[in-house]
Parts: sequence; C-alpha cells; structure tokens
Amino acid sequence: MPGKPFIFESRVRFGDTDASGRIFYASLLRHFDAAETEFLRSLGSGYADPEDQMGFPRVHVECDFMVALSYDDPIAIAVTVERVGRTSFTLMFDVSTNGRQAARGKLTIVSIDRETQRPAPLPGRLREALEA
Amino acid sequence: MPGKPFIFESRVRFGDTDASGRIFYASLLRHFDAAETEFLRSLGSGYADPEDQMGFPRVHVECDFMVALSYDDPIAIAVTVERVGRTSFTLMFDVSTNGRQAARGKLTIVSIDRETQRPAPLPGRLREALEA
Amino acid sequence: MPGKPFIFESRVRFGDTDASGRIFYASLLRHFDAAETEFLRSLGSGYADPEDQMGFPRVHVECDFMVALSYDDPIAIAVTVERVGRTSFTLMFDVSTNGRQAARGKLTIVSIDRETQRPAPLPGRLREALEA
Amino acid sequence: MPGKPFIFESRVRFGDTDASGRIFYASLLRHFDAAETEFLRSLGSGYADPEDQMGFPRVHVECDFMVALSYDDPIAIAVTVERVGRTSFTLMFDVSTNGRQAARGKLTIVSIDRETQRPAPLPGRLREALEA
Repeated sequence: MPGKPFIFESRVRFGDTDASGRIFYASLLRHFDAAETEFLRSLGSGYADPEDQMGFPRVHVECDFMVALSYDDPIAIAVTVERVGRTSFTLMFDVSTNGRQAARGKLTIVSIDRETQRPAPLPGRLREALEA
Repeated sequence: MPGKPFIFESRVRFGDTDASGRIFYASLLRHFDAAETEFLRSLGSGYADPEDQMGFPRVHVECDFMVALSYDDPIAIAVTVERVGRTSFTLMFDVSTNGRQAARGKLTIVSIDRETQRPAPLPGRLREALEA
Repeated sequence: MPGKPFIFESRVRFGDTDASGRIFYASLLRHFDAAETEFLRSLGSGYADPEDQMGFPRVHVECDFMVALSYDDPIAIAVTVERVGRTSFTLMFDVSTNGRQAARGKLTIVSIDRETQRPAPLPGRLREALEA
Repeated sequence: MPGKPFIFESRVRFGDTDASGRIFYASLLRHFDAAETEFLRSLGSGYADPEDQMGFPRVHVECDFMVALSYDDPIAIAVTVERVGRTSFTLMFDVSTNGRQAARGKLTIVSIDRETQRPAPLPGRLREALEA
C-alpha cells in the first residue's frame, strides 16, 4: 500500500446516535459498510457478478472506539487491505474526526460458493484489485 | 376481528434511542417488523413458501407518534388486519406503553410474482389466515 | 419554493437491503434522516442550539414506495418544505433513482420546550430558514 | 459463574437480513444490545441511575460468525461476564441457533464520569451484580 489510502467521508447521523448522546456502537459499522463498497468501487472492482454464484459472508468484525462521536461530527474513514488470503481478505477501517483518530475497525470477508456454501477462492478480479 | 387482537411485547432498546433520549422514529418500525412476523405466525401462516416465487414488497408505511418512548420502556403492539385486497393487505400497529397509547402505524404489503415483478393474487393460505 | 429543490445524493447500502434483495422499508428512512440534516444545513440553519432547551420530536412519518431499490442503486432525495406551522413543520422527500421516481416520504416535526415537554413556537432562525 | 448462564432468546427479523439472505453482520449487535439489558436486569441491576451522572461508552466490540443465520431463525444468546475491572467490564455473547453455535461476540464497556468524561470506578451496585 504505497499510495494514499482510500478515504470515505460521512457524518454521524441523528439516527446513528443513542440516548448517551454519542454514536451507538453498531451504527458505526453501517458507515464501514458504505465505506467498503466505495473502497471496492475505487479499486475498479466490487464483489463477483451475481452470475458467479459467489457469496461473501463476514466471519469477523471488531472495532475499538477511542473518541466519542456525536451527532453531525464529520468522519473520515481510511480503508486499507490488511490481508488477502486464498478464500478471504481483511479490511481495516481507520476512523478520524477533525484529524483525530476516533475508532479503528477490522472486517474479515470470506468468499463462498453459494451452491455448496463452502469457502472458495476469491474471484480473480477481486483478488487483483485487493492486491494492487 | 371479533376476537382479541394479537399483542407483540417488546422494549425500547438502547440502540433504538437517539440523542434526544427518545426512540428514533425509524427504530419503531423495526419493532413493527418483528410484530408482523409474530402476528402471521399466530395466524398459523407466514408468507408464501420460497418455492412459490412470491415476493411481498411494502408499498406504504406510516406512523403517528403520540407519546415519547424512552430506553427500556415496555411496548405492547396490537396488530390487526385493516384490509385484505386481491393483491395486497394492510396491517395496523397500535403501540402502547404501560396502558397508554404511544404510536399508531400502518403498513401495506403487496404480493408480487418474482418472475414478472407484477402484483399477483395473495397466496390462498395467507389470504385465509388474514381473513379469519 | 421558486428555486431548485435541495438534492441529497446517496446509494442503497448493503446493510439497507433485506433478504428480498430490495431495500428494507425502514432503511430508506435513515437516508431521509441524513437528507434532513443536509437540507437544513443548506438553508444555513439546523435545529436550535442545545442551550435553547428545545426538542424536535417527530410526530408523523409516511412513505410510499413505487419502485424497488436494490443494493448500490444511486438515490437522489429532493427535500422540500411542505408546511410551516406555528409549532411544527412538514418536510417532503422525493426519492428517485436514475431519473425515475422510486419513493415519496413525508415527515412532521414538532418543536417542544424540553422543560415542559409541550409544543412551543419554532425557533425564529429555523422558521425563517424554512420559510425562505 | 458456577450457575447457568443467562439466555436471551430472540429471532432473526426480516429487517436484520441483507440481500445475501443472511443476517447483516451489524444487525446481530442489536440483539446483543437487547441481551445486555436483559442480562443486567436478571442480575437485579442495570446501569447507574441517571442522577449518578455516569456514562457507559463501549470501547471495544468484536464478533465471530460461524454459521449463517437467516430470516426467522431462532437465536439463543448466552451472556456471561468475562472480566470486571476497576473502571470497565467485558461481556461475552454466545449465540446459538437450534443448539448449534452460530456466533460469538464480546463487548467492553467503560464507566465514565459524565462531567469530566474520564474513566471512573464502576458504580458499586453494578460491580456487585457483575461479580456475583
């Protein structure tokens, strides 16, 4: 990853917050979801074509929250590829607000054959994009 | 509907609230979603079998909020059938907390043929259950 | 509203969809929530300052869905003010995808005094922005 | 924890699923949220009284997904206390469906003084409940 990381920009929405006044922890993951799609688009890829009969279940997610995020706070999510395996890959999400690190997440995604529901090699185009 | 309405009981979860300290308006709809499934189960029905190739998109939703609901408030959702048409039906959701009416929602669901994506008659078993 | 309506652009995220392959009906409301904030920002306003002790509960929401929205579909939400009353106002959300109308929603927001929890006149700055 | 673990029972709701037909990964965390509240209630506790001016931000969450969960699958979430520290504690969530382990999550919650926004000792009543 010699180049600049992909940055997805968004804001904490009112519906993302909870009664503590901060972002509800699971709501940040919805921003990761959007960031993931835009990151893959930026690579000129995406998941396999529907015809491929591939599925991409998530097998691990984790997130550390360092700074409280509140309604309307701008968030910048830097997405990077942490690991590309034969049948899975891991993305990192570094969240900052106004230049200050606020959270750090990780998501591991597996490629499966929808027929057999078993892990299968990552589609070539996706692998190439992730390794670029 | 001469009998007693079906009641789905739940509570306002922390993640349902927003920074106002009340339930986020769209979060109540997730409780309607759970209530709808349990209501249909109570009728001995559910949506068509997957083999039926039927889909059930929602074409209208509305909700009036009368009383603020807060974290952990108990909610009782009375579900009733407001209307059964040839290709659609409407459910009502009366929400109360501690015996006091808190919200009232309505959801119109259409039956479609997944192949043609056009409205199709409600599956017989579902129609019979809704009309009972 | 002689000028052009405010447009909020987004996409249907994977987490917005449900097992039908379409957007889950309540998920579209989260996009309305984002559109509402950006619309008010575009007016140079927002809700009252926290010091104002005003709250803005939503008392009515409704939405009609005309076209199925699927993962990654681009959505453009035109936000307009339908009505400005003494203590409440109503926003309209016209959703289109690739130039085709997909959904139409409405949200009524009341201004309350947080101390008394009773309706109170809309803050002046907000009223002026909405009426502009 | 010599006794039986607390079990929270629920079902995968339609709105919890995504276009893959499985539960959307972040949606399972909303069930953890409900399970957490019910677990604390079962201990005869809950978070500090509002007057305490304590807050309980979440600083870490993680989850491993072993088995795909689909719409209407019954889920049983066993909640246990993994660790009780001076200013934080960690809960474990073991999710099973029809007796088969489906997911395993972990949540670390910190006690803060809302005035200073700094970590503060867990309220006595909460600590006693967690250590019981």
